[in-house]
Amino acid sequence: MFRWKDGTTDEQVDAIEAALGTLPGEIPELGDYHFGRDLDLVNANFDFCVVADLDDEDAWATYRDHPVHRRIIEELIAPHVDTRVAIQYAIT
Amino acid sequence: MFRWKDGTTDEQVDAIEAALGTLPGEIPELGDYHFGRDLDLVNANFDFCVVADLDDEDAWATYRDHPVHRRIIEELIAPHVDTRVAIQYAIT
Repeated sequence: MFRWKDGTTDEQVDAIEAALGTLPGEIPELGDYHFGRDLDLVNANFDFCVVADLDDEDAWATYRDHPVHRRIIEELIAPHVDTRVAIQYAIT
Repeated sequence: MFRWKDGTTDEQVDAIEAALGTLPGEIPELGDYHFGRDLDLVNANFDFCVVADLDDEDAWATYRDHPVHRRIIEELIAPHVDTRVAIQYAIT
């Protein structure tokens, strides 16, 4: 979950969404994959989230470290991040 | 997504999980519903998350305001919350 820096534009977030949308085609280990902007129903929410379903810890590490994913993070996401929070949890 | 206060016990989180597990039976509008503890794969992660799939904004508001949900929040969750972050986003 991300809070963007002030001044981050809709076009920059569009580019992030377009790039993330390529990842299911790049990473076979990646299961259900959803991401999107906050709908602005509640004040003080975060701005953007990414939710990835992965079968196990190895699949998660493959996703995390995949070079296309890393390039998206470094080139498109990281420059705009004010705050990032994350969790990995098990669906039983 | 929650970060618990120092001193929050496993038993207190067990009670939260047990109570949240009753909500799909209480709230017909609630679709897929997952929650859980951080797996501790990454330092500095948050501690707990709740992910609720809801069909639309009305269903989300019903879930948010349901008295059983509010009682769980007030009695079991809120006393242990150091930090809470949230987002509502659309799955397309």
